[in-house]
This record gives sequence, C-alpha cells and structure tokens, in this order.
Amino acid sequence: MIDVGIVGASGYTGLELLRILSKHVQVEKIFVAASASNKNKILHIIKSFNGSKSFSAVDFDSNKLNECDVVFFATPHGVAMKKASSLLKSGVKIIDLSADFRLKNPKEYIKWYELQHSEKDLLKEATYGLPELYREELKTSRIVAMPGCYPTAVILGFYPLLKANLINTKNLIADCKSGVSGAGKIAKTTTMFTAVSENFTAYGLTGHRHWPEIYQELDLVVSKANLQTESTTNTTGLLFSPHLAPMIRGIEATLYCELNEETLDVDVKKIFEQEYKSEPFIEILPDGVNPETSSVRGINTVKIAVNRPIHDKTLRSNRVRIYVVEDNLVKGASGQAVQVMNIMFGLKETTGLELTSLIP
Amino acid sequence: MIDVGIVGASGYTGLELLRILSKHVQVEKIFVAASASNKNKILHIIKSFNGSKSFSAVDFDSNKLNECDVVFFATPHGVAMKKASSLLKSGVKIIDLSADFRLKNPKEYIKWYELQHSEKDLLKEATYGLPELYREELKTSRIVAMPGCYPTAVILGFYPLLKANLINTKNLIADCKSGVSGAGKIAKTTTMFTAVSENFTAYGLTGHRHWPEIYQELDLVVSKANLQTESTTNTTGLLFSPHLAPMIRGIEATLYCELNEETLDVDVKKIFEQEYKSEPFIEILPDGVNPETSSVRGINTVKIAVNRPIHDKTLRSNRVRIYVVEDNLVKGASGQAVQVMNIMFGLKETTGLELTSLIP
Amino acid sequence: MIDVGIVGASGYTGLELLRILSKHVQVEKIFVAASASNKNKILHIIKSFNGSKSFSAVDFDSNKLNECDVVFFATPHGVAMKKASSLLKSGVKIIDLSADFRLKNPKEYIKWYELQHSEKDLLKEATYGLPELYREELKTSRIVAMPGCYPTAVILGFYPLLKANLINTKNLIADCKSGVSGAGKIAKTTTMFTAVSENFTAYGLTGHRHWPEIYQELDLVVSKANLQTESTTNTTGLLFSPHLAPMIRGIEATLYCELNEETLDVDVKKIFEQEYKSEPFIEILPDGVNPETSSVRGINTVKIAVNRPIHDKTLRSNRVRIYVVEDNLVKGASGQAVQVMNIMFGLKETTGLELTSLIP
Amino acid sequence: MIDVGIVGASGYTGLELLRILSKHVQVEKIFVAASASNKNKILHIIKSFNGSKSFSAVDFDSNKLNECDVVFFATPHGVAMKKASSLLKSGVKIIDLSADFRLKNPKEYIKWYELQHSEKDLLKEATYGLPELYREELKTSRIVAMPGCYPTAVILGFYPLLKANLINTKNLIADCKSGVSGAGKIAKTTTMFTAVSENFTAYGLTGHRHWPEIYQELDLVVSKANLQTESTTNTTGLLFSPHLAPMIRGIEATLYCELNEETLDVDVKKIFEQEYKSEPFIEILPDGVNPETSSVRGINTVKIAVNRPIHDKTLRSNRVRIYVVEDNLVKGASGQAVQVMNIMFGLKETTGLELTSLIP
Repeated sequence: MIDVGIVGASGYTGLELLRILSKHVQVEKIFVAASASNKNKILHIIKSFNGSKSFSAVDFDSNKLNECDVVFFATPHGVAMKKASSLLKSGVKIIDLSADFRLKNPKEYIKWYELQHSEKDLLKEATYGLPELYREELKTSRIVAMPGCYPTAVILGFYPLLKANLINTKNLIADCKSGVSGAGKIAKTTTMFTAVSENFTAYGLTGHRHWPEIYQELDLVVSKANLQTESTTNTTGLLFSPHLAPMIRGIEATLYCELNEETLDVDVKKIFEQEYKSEPFIEILPDGVNPETSSVRGINTVKIAVNRPIHDKTLRSNRVRIYVVEDNLVKGASGQAVQVMNIMFGLKETTGLELTSLIP
Repeated sequence: MIDVGIVGASGYTGLELLRILSKHVQVEKIFVAASASNKNKILHIIKSFNGSKSFSAVDFDSNKLNECDVVFFATPHGVAMKKASSLLKSGVKIIDLSADFRLKNPKEYIKWYELQHSEKDLLKEATYGLPELYREELKTSRIVAMPGCYPTAVILGFYPLLKANLINTKNLIADCKSGVSGAGKIAKTTTMFTAVSENFTAYGLTGHRHWPEIYQELDLVVSKANLQTESTTNTTGLLFSPHLAPMIRGIEATLYCELNEETLDVDVKKIFEQEYKSEPFIEILPDGVNPETSSVRGINTVKIAVNRPIHDKTLRSNRVRIYVVEDNLVKGASGQAVQVMNIMFGLKETTGLELTSLIP
Repeated sequence: MIDVGIVGASGYTGLELLRILSKHVQVEKIFVAASASNKNKILHIIKSFNGSKSFSAVDFDSNKLNECDVVFFATPHGVAMKKASSLLKSGVKIIDLSADFRLKNPKEYIKWYELQHSEKDLLKEATYGLPELYREELKTSRIVAMPGCYPTAVILGFYPLLKANLINTKNLIADCKSGVSGAGKIAKTTTMFTAVSENFTAYGLTGHRHWPEIYQELDLVVSKANLQTESTTNTTGLLFSPHLAPMIRGIEATLYCELNEETLDVDVKKIFEQEYKSEPFIEILPDGVNPETSSVRGINTVKIAVNRPIHDKTLRSNRVRIYVVEDNLVKGASGQAVQVMNIMFGLKETTGLELTSLIP
Repeated sequence: MIDVGIVGASGYTGLELLRILSKHVQVEKIFVAASASNKNKILHIIKSFNGSKSFSAVDFDSNKLNECDVVFFATPHGVAMKKASSLLKSGVKIIDLSADFRLKNPKEYIKWYELQHSEKDLLKEATYGLPELYREELKTSRIVAMPGCYPTAVILGFYPLLKANLINTKNLIADCKSGVSGAGKIAKTTTMFTAVSENFTAYGLTGHRHWPEIYQELDLVVSKANLQTESTTNTTGLLFSPHLAPMIRGIEATLYCELNEETLDVDVKKIFEQEYKSEPFIEILPDGVNPETSSVRGINTVKIAVNRPIHDKTLRSNRVRIYVVEDNLVKGASGQAVQVMNIMFGLKETTGLELTSLIP
C-alpha cells in the first residue's frame, strides 16, 4: 500500500487523478495540496469521492507531502520544477504531469515555455513517462515527466514503423484533433460554449508546445534505429497540426508516412500487432472498425488503426496512414500517470485502470 | 427573371437551395418536384418560405419542369442521369448536385457508385461546377456537375500552387473534417445524436467516393501546368482522409504539400492572394486568425489560411500547410450551385448570395 | 431612410443588431460606438458586413450619435440611463436593450440591479417594447425599454388568456429553458464548453432579474382585465424557473395555468389564434407539431402551442399548458428591437426581419 | 455469488447493465440472450468487458436462463410478459426494465401500450422497483417492475411531501427534460444529430406513457397518507411535460406544488433530509448549489434541491419547487435495477454501484 500526494487537484488532470486513484486498491492515503484559497473547493471535491479512501486536503507546503511515497504534479508549468528537489531528498518519487521535465534541452524549454529551467540535473535524470517506450527505465526512476496528450497519441502511432526502420523519417505528418478539456479549466473566450459548439477550429498555426516534445521523442527513436542498422543517417521531419473539435474529451490523430522503397511489401498492421502485442493499453483495431474517440472515453486504452490508403493510379503506393484515438485526460494524462506509478512501485500495471467506457 | 425547378427538395441540399433561392431577386417562379407521397411535406416546407416568391409543388414528371429555365437536381445519384436528356431537349439547363456527372470516366462511375452510366455523351458535355476553375466554360454550359462538399474545399486549397507548378504533385495530402449534415437526411445509427455527440470519428479508411473526384480535378490541373512548362511530366498522388466532427455544418480541410526545390523562396500566401484576388467568395485569412468553420456557417465564402509550418531543426523547410473552411451545404453544395446558375444566366455572380453568418 | 447608432456592438445582442440592420432597406448609415480599446474589434466586425451599408465606428461620446434618428443600447445596465437624457434632447429616439427602463418602480431596480436609478422621469416615460401589447404607445414613444429574452416568451404566452380574464391569475407557472448565449459574451467558468456540453442545469433558484419584469407586465394585464370586468379583484402570482440547456440559441417556455370554473369550455387555441391573428411574428402551431427552438433559430417569429393536458381521472380538467419557442437573440432581443424601430418610424413592421431559419 | 441473465443487451439499458454488472463482485456468471442475428454484435460487446467476468452469449430460448438466479429484461414491452411465467416456475427471479409490469390496471396497459396483458396474476404479484418506497416488499419479491426514467425522478421528488400530507395533491406539476438516450437506440429522424443538436423540443403534448405510471404511484402515496390522517379524502392531479434536451444522458425534473394552509411554516428541506437520510443514493443539495445533470452522469445518485420560490408581492407564499437530477440510464434504469437485485438477494445495497462520475 502506498501513500500518494497530488499537487493541483482542481484542474482537469488533477480531478481525473482523484477519480482513478480513489478506486486504486494499492493506494492507502491521498493528500491533496491546495492553497488556502482553494482548500474549500478541494475539500468539496474530495467529499464526492468519500468513503472509499482516506483523503485529506493539506497545505501547499505541508510536510505530509514529504511523507508520501509519490507525489503527482497536476500544475501549470514552473511549479513542479520548484518543488521537485526537496521532495526527492525526502525519498519521495515524482510524477510530473506538467511540461517541466519533458524537454531534455533546457534551451527548448525557455523557447517554448518562456521560463528559465532551474533544475538541469533533474532534467537529465527524468524519464519520459511513456511505458510502451520506457518501461524498463521507469521501474527505477525517481522522477518522471509525463507526456503531453498529443505526444502520447502521435508517438505511439509512429513508434512501431520508426523502430523497425521502415519509413521515411523526414516525412512524418500528424494531423490531430482534440476535445476542449485539453485547453484546461481556466475560463477563456475561445473555450466558451458559444465559441466551441458547432465549430471546428485549427489553431497553433505558427507552432505548438507539443511539437518540440513529439519531435524530440521521434528523433530519439530514429537515432536508435539508425544505430541498429548502421546504414544511413536519417533525419527527422515532423509536421504537427492541432485542431479543436466541439467535444469535451478525446484526441484523434491521423498520421501519414511513407514506407521505404525496400520495405514496400511489409504488412504494416502486423508490425503494429507484434510491437504492441503485450501492451495492456493498446488495441489494434480490426479492419472495418472506424477509429472513434467515444470508444475510449474514460478509459486508458489507445486504439490504433493502420492502412495503406488509395493514393494514385498505380496499385503500388508506399503511403501508410495510421489513426490513433485516446482519451486526452486518461491515457493522454492521468491514467497514464497511474500506469507509470504502478510500474515505478512494482504493482500490476493495470491496477486501478480496469475502467469501463460510458456508452453512450 | 428566371423560372427554376428543384427536384429533391426534402434533403438538406434541396432545403438549402430553397432557403437561398427564396431571396434571389432574379428568380420568379420556383417549382419543387416531389413524389405524391412527399408532396405534403414539400408543401409544408414551401409554406415556411411563403410570401416572398411564387412557389409550387409539382409532380416528379410535371411538364412545369420542362418550362423552367433551369432545373436543379438535389437527388441521390442515378436520378439526374435519367431525367437530363429530356429536359435539355426542352431547352432547360441542368445543375446537378448529385454525383451523376462528376466523374468523366464512366468506368470510375460504375466502380464508385455501382451503377452503369446511361448518358455518356452528356457526361462528356457536362462542366464541373467550380467557378474558380471553370467560370468561362460555365457561361455557355447546358449541363453542370456540381462538386462534392469535400472536393470544393480540397481543390480550391491546392489549386493555386498546382497551377503555378510550385509543388511536388505526388505528395498531396488532404485531412478533412465534416459536420454530420454531409451524411444526408436519412436516419442511420451512425448519425444519431447518441453516436455523434462527444465523438470524433475517422471513416472511409478503405476509400471514399470523393477521392476519384478530387483526384480527377487535381490531375487535370497538374496536366495543364505540365503543358505550360513543357518540362517534366509530373504525376499526381493524393491521400484523402475524411472525418466526422460532432457538429451539424461545416468542413475544415488541412492540406499538406511540398514546394519544389527551386521554388523554396516563394511567398505562398501571395500566390493565393493573387490567384483569388477577384473571387467574390474566397477570402485569404490574415496571419493570426485561426480558420474556423463557424466563421462561414450559412454563407458562401471559403476562407483559406496558408503557412510554412515548423518541420525540423533546419530553418529551411519546403513544407506548406493550407487550411480551408467552408459551409458544406452552401459553398460545398447549394450556394455554389446558385453561384453557377448566376454565371450560366449572365447574372451578377453574388446575386442571392449576400448571406450573413449567424454568430454565435 | 434613417440613420442609426448602436452603443455596445461587441456583445451578442449588438452583433445581432448589426446582422439585421445591415440588410434593412430603410437604414442608411450605421454608427457603432465603442471605447478606444474596443474600436479595432468593432472595425473588424463591421468589415464582415461590408459593402451593403455605410458603417462607421465612432467614439463612445461622438457627436455622430446625437445626429442619428435612433440609438440602440446593447450595453450592460447602467449605461443607457446615463446617456439617455442628452440624446433625447438632441431629438434622438432611444431603444434600450438593457434593463435600465424595464422596471417601472425604481425601488425594484435598486433591489434587483443594485444600482440607484438616476432618471426617474424618463422611467415613467419609457414604453415597454413588446409590440403585441404596446404597439399604439410605441408609435409615439421617444424612449423604449426592450423586454428581456425570458419575459418576451412568458408574457406573450400568458397574455391572451389573462386579457380575456379566463384564468386563475394567482397560479401562473413559467418553466423556461435557455441557450447559453443568454448569459452574454464574457468568459465565465459556468459557460465554458466543458461545463455546459452534455449538461442541463437549473439556476436562479433564489430569484432571477426577469421575475420582477414578467410579474410587472402580467400584473398590468391582470389589472386591466379586472377593470374591464368590474368584478373580482384578482391578484397575480407567478413562479418563474430558468434553466440552461446545452445549446447556443433558443428559449423554450412551458407555461401552466388554470381556467376559471365558468370558462372551462372555452377553446383555448382559438383564443390565441384570434388574439394574435394579425401579428406578423407570432405563429400558433397546428396540433401535432412539437414546439422546438431550432424552428425559430435566427428569425423573429415566436411559435406557440396550447393544449389541455391529461391531469387526473376525470375527463374535465381546468388545466392549460402553453409552449412558447423563440430565438433569445432575435425576438428575445435584437429582432424585436428592430421591429420596435419600424413601428416608431412608421415603417412596415416586418422590414429587415424577413429572415430565414438555417435548417439544419 | 449469483448467476445473472440479461435479455436484450444491445439496447442502451442492456449495455448499461453490462457495464455495471461486469464490476459487481457478487455476480459470477452473466448470460446474455440474443437472437441468432444479434449474437455476433453481443459477442463483440461482451468482448469489451472481457477478463473480469464469465460472460456468455446464449440463445433467446436457452436453458441457461432458467438456471440463473435472476434474469433482467432490457427489452421492448411485450417480451418480458411472454417469458416471465416459465422463468418464475424454474425459480428464477425477474427484474423487468420494460413497461410490462408497471401499470397495475391491465386496462391502462392496453390503452397506453396497445397490447393485451397476458399475465394478469403476475401483474398483481409484481413489485414496483423503487427501493425508496418499496424496499421491504422487494426483499421477498419474485418479480419486479422497474420504474421508467421520468417516474423515478418525479416520484422521488414528490414523495416526502405527499407522504407527510403537507401539500395540495390536486396541483402536482412535473416539468421534465431528458437526454436523447431515453429515446432508445433505434435510428429515427427525430433523434439524429442534425435534428437534436442546438435544439430543445417539447414532445408528448397529448400524453406520454409515463404519465399513468407516475400518476398511479403518486396516487397510492396519497391514498396511504389519507388513511393515516383519517381526515380528508384528497384526490390526485398531475401535469407531466416531457422535453428533449440536446445531450446524451440525464434527466432534470422541476416539480411544483403547494403547501396546505396549515403547514405553511414547515421546513421543506428538512422534510426531505429526514425522509431520505438513510438512503444511499439520494443526496439533498445544500443551498447555493445548482442542480445539474452532469453531476450525476454515470452514477446511481439522485440529487434533489428544494426551495420556496418567489411568487408574489406577499412574503408568505405556499409554493414549493423541487428539482431532481438523475442519470436516466443509471438511477433511471439499469443502476436502480442492480440496486433492486442487491435488495432481492440480501446483498449490500450499494454493491457494484460505487460508481464515479466522469468530470468533465
């Protein structure tokens, strides 16, 4: 049994952590840190999860956090960075859902988040919390940077083909659509009902913070694959286009890439099935089933469809199209964070994540 | 003043034609053809447009249609094909919103619509009703095949760069998202509120009827451009991915392509602005404005944004990204059909199309 | 031809005024007043209505307003009150869409709007802008208080039966449901997409500003009816329950009342048909048609259904149920304001209001 | 541990039963009955609940159902009636979510469901499955008629005041709003996305099948209360107005009634708190919290707010307003059915119903 701290429980990812951890059989106590002004709100929220667990609201600087086994940060960027060092010294593990430890190059952090990085050593130490790529590293990590919602979908979608060195690494395209909860809980005119309902919007035309994160991780996969083959030194090129769909939850990513000439006859679906065959939270969709975000609402599963689309007059095209759907707040954030916690503490990876989708 | 017939007014594009034509100052009488069983419904619909025009519901085979100046078909495929010849003989012009005269190769028609084409001569004669590409031809056409909703957006998005021979014609990608009205008015489980709300779906994974149509038109532009430059013979390659967004109206198309090496320094936005500078229904968005479907809801305008997205570590990438938004029932169907009618009859092209978007 | 000023064009009712007035054939110039900081925004908005009218953005205190024939206030409460007097002195008529001149008793204004009323004489002079009740008075009014969105629906629903002295005036119940645009354009957590979508909320449990307004008007109708019959002195009792529905536009009001014993055999639908038979913007629905807000989206029409619902084991119940649907931004605000302008200036009442609903 | 059969698992209430029972720790085997044509679909659905339980798809007439401890019917009306007798003979208990055993008077059944009732003895035996009213009876019932979704909300809302003989029983009004899932899973034009989104509709103007059901149960409460007080013989009068809101799940009921003269000073909220103080699935909302359907999405809790609304110029009004929110598919259907099963089998009443709402 482990004790858990959560910093920032009033946002969407914090709430989702509470929803999931409140049913987690290996979690004993949950300490939710809040500022004095926010505490009543937190106590109200906690009350709705009442009965099943020992919940308490504590000060932002409470010693209770230092006594936890693990502390989750569901905070705006900049917060985890400040708190990490002292918690680690107390032997507390850290799972950060913010962007603070995602970008390995501190210069990129300044560029995209307009903030100097104060913990460059911890940045080096931090593991990127994507179990399908870093499960072994996570087992012994003290500090984990959870991937963003878009990066989870895009990286899992390109990974099998990149790893197997099957595609042109320069021509990766990710066209992504997200529900509005991805924009967070702060009221903005752009996320009002009147602005979002009956509207589909493209945004981030000149750049989006998830681009450097996806690029970094895909580039690492490409580098490893290059090393293995000892052949060419491929470079990585990625187009990433975020869009806002009029719904609360869900991300759909449609990915485009090109098989290398010599690998044209590969069975791409099989590549995915083999790569992910032991993964508890990845499902390769059978032919004929359309990828849809409602099928993963509220659950930690990513569903993937792969195909070779119609492209031109020839029968032989090298194009591959990959569809990925996830719940941005579950596999794209808090569910994956609990999955990572399970790995870090040697628990069964699916504990607390046997969730059922609400249909309809 | 012209007299107009509409066959198939109970579907969405038919209703939209009524909405627009009922305010068209150059239209005198409107005859709406319906089967006996549908007539009451049609009369009820017509009543809601009452007062402003002379509307009448007529039999499907009424002679009144033969006395019209123009007849619109807003019918399932197969209907216009049967009726076209006799109407043309009576001197009636035809604007067909169905797919019957879109694909110039009858073999493609059988392949995608599972129906033998019975009017191959008319097929040859028919003009593709996209004013921005075929305005001159439309002025003298007797029979016009209106583009599908997706094709309108995609073709207008790629056209300026293809025409100017600036991009790699083999690598065209169109990632498109549509509101549910595109699926028509027939009740299906996939278009029920419980299936669509809070859901984003990819469909048409193995092919979609709009692919051959888009491909045909883009390929024609490529061929013409090839001829002009007398240089290389480029081939056309197109990936097209339709998606369903939880909203009633609107299409957003995000298009990807690559500038040729020698044209890397071109100002792509300027190309669009010049190509479309006289177009009454195309607006190139200024930098900083996000393309959103609600901005064109109910109006005939297509809005386009163009940019050079972040791609890799170099500062010099050849990628271009184009965003197009339209109302699928207006510029994507009935509004464009009225625009074409205006051209065919020498009227001011914007007549009846001075529409205002409902915001919010 | 008249010149029109609009103060407060960036909110929803201001935008809707622009949408409607931009097509009004009797309006020549439109001056939109905005603070310096808001002017660019206004200019951008105006640009989208370009071509059809002479639009200009002016200072909040511009002399141009004093040269208008009429000035609309689409402002928060408190603004029109300050500006009214000086405009009237310049001979400008005033149509106020805010609450400043709605409540005849200044004490009620303080109570519900927490603001002292500074123009008690103008308050006495102001006409309540509901044409169906006050058409004659409006013809000669200098200053008009436009009804709120809920009051328009509720008053029009109860009016015919109250006027005819047919119902128990103590037992009026109005259960109302509104789209989110009624809450205005300011970003609040309660009107975010994530809070509203897939949610139906009751609010205003302890009172709502539209209660005193509806009560005042119904009570006036009751008093007049009492006078006419010279019989009993009925008192007025009204329950009003507002609810928020997950949609942008539309109000549905379900009204409940009881016929007096001696009037049990009256044909209630006929009462409505006769009362409203000359009204250009009221439609009594035929039996079998469900009242739905989408049927009035974007148009100035109110649709009303009346019936005698199942109530108990007897066949003879005195209960009446009235359903009213309207577009809260059109007949519930800006459309009705233009209707009032037409009346004030002796124009055809429907001018500029020949609107067509967008379906679907 | 009990074995459970489900007849009709492809509709929404059937699916919801599967969602809930698949996590029920006291349920061992689940047999899902389906016609041959539907079996594949059912197997596909069952697969998604895989791992946690022993699920099997069986024939509609399978003997396996006769070996279950309890069989749920989630079928259209008419089916349970046919099957009930033989199952009961095999010692199987029956929980019927359809309307077959709700109306105690077979004449009412014919009138509202247009079907002769073939099991009048069982009809007499059947208990109405509302635990808050019939918990004791349910403990020994063999056959239970689950309440409809609207009746659950309305009856629970009026019950405390009727039971305590505090209100005028002739003047009960229930204004109800439902999400679209209440209309079932069959595709109809009225439940398409294009018909429902951005639309609020009143329906059932001339009567709704839930009226006789609510009336019957409220009338029974009134009769009992009459007996207790031995005083007046009150009669029951109920207006019931169903509406369709543009959302998938949820019912909100706003109820109106009048306190008797002698009970004007009663603390109505306290009456509710006392009546329901031991109820695991009823929560009386504190003042200041708005009743909203999203707060009960996916959970078995009913939330109730009570107040004395503003009514007229006096400070002393006898009106009471009650708000009830529930998830129509959980407490309004399948969750309540599992609650009833727990009672029938002497299990802890909340087993399997410790559900968490998905927010946002």
